[in-house]
Amino acid sequence: MSPGSRSVAAGPYTEFGERVLCALGVPRADAHLLSDSLVKAELWGHSSHGMLRLPWYTARLRSGAMTAVTAPEPVSDTGTVLVLDGRNGIGQVLTARAVEEGVARARRHGISGVAVRNSNHFGTAAYFTRRAAEQGCVALLATNASPAMAPWGGREKTVGTNPWSLAAPAGERGVAVMDIANTAVARGKIYLADERGEAIPEGWAADARGRPTTDPREAVHGLILPMGGHKGYVISFMFDVLAGVLTGSSFGGSVVGPYAPEGESGCGHLLLTIDVAAMADPRDFGHRVEALIEETKAVPLAADATEILYPGELEDRNERRRLREGIPVADQTWESLARLAQETSVPLPETTPL
Amino acid sequence: MSPGSRSVAAGPYTEFGERVLCALGVPRADAHLLSDSLVKAELWGHSSHGMLRLPWYTARLRSGAMTAVTAPEPVSDTGTVLVLDGRNGIGQVLTARAVEEGVARARRHGISGVAVRNSNHFGTAAYFTRRAAEQGCVALLATNASPAMAPWGGREKTVGTNPWSLAAPAGERGVAVMDIANTAVARGKIYLADERGEAIPEGWAADARGRPTTDPREAVHGLILPMGGHKGYVISFMFDVLAGVLTGSSFGGSVVGPYAPEGESGCGHLLLTIDVAAMADPRDFGHRVEALIEETKAVPLAADATEILYPGELEDRNERRRLREGIPVADQTWESLARLAQETSVPLPETTPL
Repeated sequence: MSPGSRSVAAGPYTEFGERVLCALGVPRADAHLLSDSLVKAELWGHSSHGMLRLPWYTARLRSGAMTAVTAPEPVSDTGTVLVLDGRNGIGQVLTARAVEEGVARARRHGISGVAVRNSNHFGTAAYFTRRAAEQGCVALLATNASPAMAPWGGREKTVGTNPWSLAAPAGERGVAVMDIANTAVARGKIYLADERGEAIPEGWAADARGRPTTDPREAVHGLILPMGGHKGYVISFMFDVLAGVLTGSSFGGSVVGPYAPEGESGCGHLLLTIDVAAMADPRDFGHRVEALIEETKAVPLAADATEILYPGELEDRNERRRLREGIPVADQTWESLARLAQETSVPLPETTPL
Repeated sequence: MSPGSRSVAAGPYTEFGERVLCALGVPRADAHLLSDSLVKAELWGHSSHGMLRLPWYTARLRSGAMTAVTAPEPVSDTGTVLVLDGRNGIGQVLTARAVEEGVARARRHGISGVAVRNSNHFGTAAYFTRRAAEQGCVALLATNASPAMAPWGGREKTVGTNPWSLAAPAGERGVAVMDIANTAVARGKIYLADERGEAIPEGWAADARGRPTTDPREAVHGLILPMGGHKGYVISFMFDVLAGVLTGSSFGGSVVGPYAPEGESGCGHLLLTIDVAAMADPRDFGHRVEALIEETKAVPLAADATEILYPGELEDRNERRRLREGIPVADQTWESLARLAQETSVPLPETTPL
């Protein structure tokens, strides 16, 4: 993808996405939420989860695979544990609802579990766990996802990246948050190495027969490996048990991803929320997280390193910079957004040349 | 470590450990539990977490760093959320208690959270999550641990391996369970490569200045790297926030490990338990996990692979074999157990030559 020749301010960028989604029948508040989640990913520096995905979502809305009006139905509710049927609504809207319910229930009971079945890809897990942490809770969010890697020892994809996120309040630091996929590497990095004719590191990929390779050409026709070898496989498998099997959603090879314009996703999510106040004094907890962060950042640097970051710090810093300087847009992303603008008669946001 | 020239049957091996611990003032039931957890690790094929650790525990009992009589005190209790002060008792005894409380509370409320502070290293996380899964619950257990790796970008150890485990009932298959440390590799594998003069894979270790290396000699004087690069670091950091900071225990570089004969550990654990019945029909859930396992195991094999295993399958198989054939004991482990036997006047278990 070309590095891009323009930038857009976050506000107008969000509004553009919101209006496009409204034009396709999504209620304004839901359209804002989905668009905001994509622009937040851009602000954090994760363009792979940003506005390049807007056309994917609109394609699924148009095909009817994802419904424009998200209307979840409670399947069961014990007070502490809620199961929601997402009825193929928008993943972000369903997950934001899960956070609302999860935080309210954790406040009442100390801890809560919210399961969402028949959802869609929710984008960036940290978008949701951060919300819970900002409200004084510790949150774990897990999702399953469409097949991206083979089980350990196999050579056909049935296991999703199954991203998961943990977030906690961090006192003066705001929020500490991690959000990872269980694959060794994003597919895009292998395409890039192939274009540049560079070898890829051990542990990233296997060839089509399932043998480990450092040749990006073989990897392109082969398989992405799990993070940390078999460890990424077992993590992904177990999060499928939690987010897919336990929630009553699809699991294994039958989850449909956000790239597919058609087909009900069957994606499921599980959110666990603990009210910090149920276990600790929240002020004291905040000070202790600050102390852990200080201690960690004060460790002497490795050769070639310039700084030690705590989980989520880089994203916070990127956000502050991009709110000031604007969000760079890749040319290919801009072209696809221009097509969407034309199709929906929504004007493109103003840009600044880079 | 030498491969060993003898094997011991599980029953007498457990009884030996139990009697040694009793001789040091540990109540019989607690002594049995700790010894059983070590022998179970042996049965599963994880000798690194097995009886070679018995002398570590006895050293900590003798120094008074770990109390022989474990007497936790509740710090707070909301019904769904319990905080226990372990008062430097035996980690295994405290964690088994957490599982008991966690399962009972999940049965009543659907979900529960149990925090344990001022504990000791609990050995193998799966020993405890399996117990919850055998009782129809899904469980996540996280612990912090003594410093084992540097934060990403650093060159001094302050971050623990912070192992964690997820387990779930798996219908006819019993239990599906994963249990991992967040380091790329166990330290022992680097010593082994050094002895053999073999290069180590990329991603395992860094030299003393924090630069990645494939030279085991440099790695021995350097650092173990996190699993999956920065991913293992952020996972370990966040589990320290949950298991150390949130529980009110020690965190970061100040946790004392089980190898140290002296010093209060300050280790903390967090157990989250969900009653499957609060979210799904348990029979249906079991069938669905079985289906996920079948689908996964049926994937065509990679070149050089002989079988695909689901998480926990290898350990179950090892256990069946070693219950039949006995547990091989490394000569070095046997020598240290012989010393313990002499010191405590407990007869060594009978052995069979290998």
